[in-house]
Amino acid sequence: MPDLSGFFAPRSPKGRASIIPAPPWYYSGDVLTLEYRAAPGAVAAWLPTGVEPADDPDAVAVVFADWQSSSDGGGELLDPVRSQYKECFVVVRCRYHGETFSRCVLIWVDKDFALARGWFQGYPKKLGSIWMTRPVTVGRAGPRLEAGGRFGATLAANDRRLAEVSLTLTGSSVTGGFVNALPMLHSRWMPSIDPSQPDALSELVTMSSQDVELGPVYTGDATVELFDVPGDELSALRPYEMIAGYWRQVGATFAGGTKLA
Amino acid sequence: MPDLSGFFAPRSPKGRASIIPAPPWYYSGDVLTLEYRAAPGAVAAWLPTGVEPADDPDAVAVVFADWQSSSDGGGELLDPVRSQYKECFVVVRCRYHGETFSRCVLIWVDKDFALARGWFQGYPKKLGSIWMTRPVTVGRAGPRLEAGGRFGATLAANDRRLAEVSLTLTGSSVTGGFVNALPMLHSRWMPSIDPSQPDALSELVTMSSQDVELGPVYTGDATVELFDVPGDELSALRPYEMIAGYWRQVGATFAGGTKLA
Amino acid sequence: MPDLSGFFAPRSPKGRASIIPAPPWYYSGDVLTLEYRAAPGAVAAWLPTGVEPADDPDAVAVVFADWQSSSDGGGELLDPVRSQYKECFVVVRCRYHGETFSRCVLIWVDKDFALARGWFQGYPKKLGSIWMTRPVTVGRAGPRLEAGGRFGATLAANDRRLAEVSLTLTGSSVTGGFVNALPMLHSRWMPSIDPSQPDALSELVTMSSQDVELGPVYTGDATVELFDVPGDELSALRPYEMIAGYWRQVGATFAGGTKLA
Amino acid sequence: MPDLSGFFAPRSPKGRASIIPAPPWYYSGDVLTLEYRAAPGAVAAWLPTGVEPADDPDAVAVVFADWQSSSDGGGELLDPVRSQYKECFVVVRCRYHGETFSRCVLIWVDKDFALARGWFQGYPKKLGSIWMTRPVTVGRAGPRLEAGGRFGATLAANDRRLAEVSLTLTGSSVTGGFVNALPMLHSRWMPSIDPSQPDALSELVTMSSQDVELGPVYTGDATVELFDVPGDELSALRPYEMIAGYWRQVGATFAGGTKLA
Repeated sequence: MPDLSGFFAPRSPKGRASIIPAPPWYYSGDVLTLEYRAAPGAVAAWLPTGVEPADDPDAVAVVFADWQSSSDGGGELLDPVRSQYKECFVVVRCRYHGETFSRCVLIWVDKDFALARGWFQGYPKKLGSIWMTRPVTVGRAGPRLEAGGRFGATLAANDRRLAEVSLTLTGSSVTGGFVNALPMLHSRWMPSIDPSQPDALSELVTMSSQDVELGPVYTGDATVELFDVPGDELSALRPYEMIAGYWRQVGATFAGGTKLA
Repeated sequence: MPDLSGFFAPRSPKGRASIIPAPPWYYSGDVLTLEYRAAPGAVAAWLPTGVEPADDPDAVAVVFADWQSSSDGGGELLDPVRSQYKECFVVVRCRYHGETFSRCVLIWVDKDFALARGWFQGYPKKLGSIWMTRPVTVGRAGPRLEAGGRFGATLAANDRRLAEVSLTLTGSSVTGGFVNALPMLHSRWMPSIDPSQPDALSELVTMSSQDVELGPVYTGDATVELFDVPGDELSALRPYEMIAGYWRQVGATFAGGTKLA
Repeated sequence: MPDLSGFFAPRSPKGRASIIPAPPWYYSGDVLTLEYRAAPGAVAAWLPTGVEPADDPDAVAVVFADWQSSSDGGGELLDPVRSQYKECFVVVRCRYHGETFSRCVLIWVDKDFALARGWFQGYPKKLGSIWMTRPVTVGRAGPRLEAGGRFGATLAANDRRLAEVSLTLTGSSVTGGFVNALPMLHSRWMPSIDPSQPDALSELVTMSSQDVELGPVYTGDATVELFDVPGDELSALRPYEMIAGYWRQVGATFAGGTKLA
Repeated sequence: MPDLSGFFAPRSPKGRASIIPAPPWYYSGDVLTLEYRAAPGAVAAWLPTGVEPADDPDAVAVVFADWQSSSDGGGELLDPVRSQYKECFVVVRCRYHGETFSRCVLIWVDKDFALARGWFQGYPKKLGSIWMTRPVTVGRAGPRLEAGGRFGATLAANDRRLAEVSLTLTGSSVTGGFVNALPMLHSRWMPSIDPSQPDALSELVTMSSQDVELGPVYTGDATVELFDVPGDELSALRPYEMIAGYWRQVGATFAGGTKLA
């Protein structure tokens, strides 16, 4: 009898039941980034032991993205319920062994395949409801990608609002922000099946996107409101000083990462 | 005591509880149209008494659209859960008093405000789950708007698939189809609160979009599959002969219609 | 060619596409009722011209219900996605032509068939997300139907919380409240397709449930919190003075109503 | 700086962001079990290397459950969006080191907290939409728990139906089935962050519910239909010979398991 097949659970006789196919995974989407500084020291509290704050240690990026994604073959693209998802995530910067990394500390997505990919990558994903204003090219129901264009985005989970943000464009930009631009430093944890024992898996990994293709960047003035809700600590990263916001289209490939520790 | 206010129910002291604000309503979105002929006579069975088949009487358009919409003021655009919705609808052509009209015979949307606007307009809306492939400009996770680009779209309701369609682009087009291009002829029905009595409201109305702004049209080869499910008759309009498919962006304003009978 | 068939839109060749079948409609469910008085005069502001406040004019019932429902034949009961729904509604009392009625001023449900039934009956329904603690008979994950049992219920719409309530049981009761116990007085409105004209339909109707079958009533101490959100006025009916809460199971039949004006 | 806290990701400064609190977890719910034999050899194909078929090797249980659940303290019970979930899962029997176990090979749930608990326990959970007929005690909209009572349940994922089952009660029973009655034998897998490397975590674990409290069992005739869909292999476990169905209420506690290999 051959063994079970499949990249991830559920593993099955033919390997087709896995919640996600094996990498590489391709992404194309709209990305709204809001950068600010949290209260002094607020970010450091979110770093695991052995990981140090970076320069400009309180910088935070809240990122909203509306993705279309696929694996090799791309069959999901014609069944878009299995290729599209939205996400909202919070990124900070940190230092480890002398290098500066980006690190995602909180993230919400709206599909299970995205949740599973994240748990594999060390993105600590939960489910949420994410909405983002889309730019338009015809009609009056939305902003143009030009000065004065206004975008909103919201995050909810468990029937409560967690975040409301806005971006009012002032013009174009050469950068899309500095907080989320680096190789990621993520933790992959799985508690022991015996809760009295140490974690069964506890890794520090790094990964970078490949074949990154970037559209033009639009920048402007940003607002970020984060709300207190039971079962979350997002509001501990409230803005203390806004930096800027950015909107761009991004294409990228994920093909795996490297275990650091 | 002043009377209750609001365009639609629920009417309330300040008129802010109405499920929809008063027109005008603005729309900007992506529209995927699949045109075909159903079995001979299939369309005529969907016309109310007094409304006649048009020339080319079996022509049908299945339309998927991903809209952003707003009322005057546009506040919903920054709270996009209240401005975005997707829909799938079936349009046929008919004649009434010597003129040719388009008529929507079945339609599904994924938000309540869109449902209410439709019931007001005579679009016989139900809730559904609608997904459409999006074109991309960067990355590998989606089609480009060029020959060879492949798009899929699906409709489900009550946890069952009702429709799966595809469009493979062959090039550009000057037309976006002929079935859904006309003034609409819709019925507005409300049964009597006493089910033994005739309808309390039974109107024939017409309406046209205003300030229509159209993006370039991409055309190609289309497929349409419609499935049998309990509680629906969509499959009675299955394709007999495909015509073509179209993708374009559309902007439009709805500001009311006219009662014909 | 025969005319279109079906109780409600969409009307279709065989009448099976209607979003709802014709009455009678049967209901069996769990009902959580929280009664209180709103600020003096708050309720009167929600009555249409010609309808007067009742005795004890500020009394309000917020009702959460978890229903299973069906039409004749009951086929939906084996496809429960089409028979189950939850709702939260706000009921007040009023007088019309010398009689005292109950009147639903705001209501949210989580299925489209329930929305359509409500619009037919004059319940001004919107979509919402409704959750209610269930009593249990085994295990530790829930309250028993006995003194000390604690129940919560929540309402959200458009990704925002609108209401949070609780009930802590103190014992049994002979009554299930007095606000929602009367014949309903509802308005059925449909604006003219030309928004500059008066309503195309504006009726005052009354209806009562039939074949009501009631389980034992449990009563206790209630809390009700109502939140401000854009596009709603629910918070205008905040409690000023709590009365009591009730939990019971209810079975009922709806078979139509009577037009009063 | 203290380390991050929390049972599961996301770990955070105060440990309150974890998608799930630490065990113990309490469950109370309604459980519908349909037992049958799949085609000869069909079940063995779902066992990992080193795990053997049990006696009566093709026996399968499809289980639908509607749970209320909580962690210690039980705060989720008053915010029921965070305590209620439904699931559908497929259980088989197997032998390992001379003992007979139950093993869940496929499972769908409708909340993220339930998904995370399952991935911790080795239940290979995906998201789905699950609906189950509820028994009623008043009214006509549902079955009574007595001979002739008919129950349906359905599973969908990604807008497609995967399973439809029914149970028609014939009477009471002393057993609730034999497939899902044993200690569970589950695999916990996490692929390496470098997809070319072996799994980073690959464990065989066992666990049993504690403090099990069982309501009376109702049994009857069962039907199970499993459908082919892209991205799943559920239909490979279609019934070959039905055994019986069962409905009962179950309370249980999960407090951790034991690693076997």
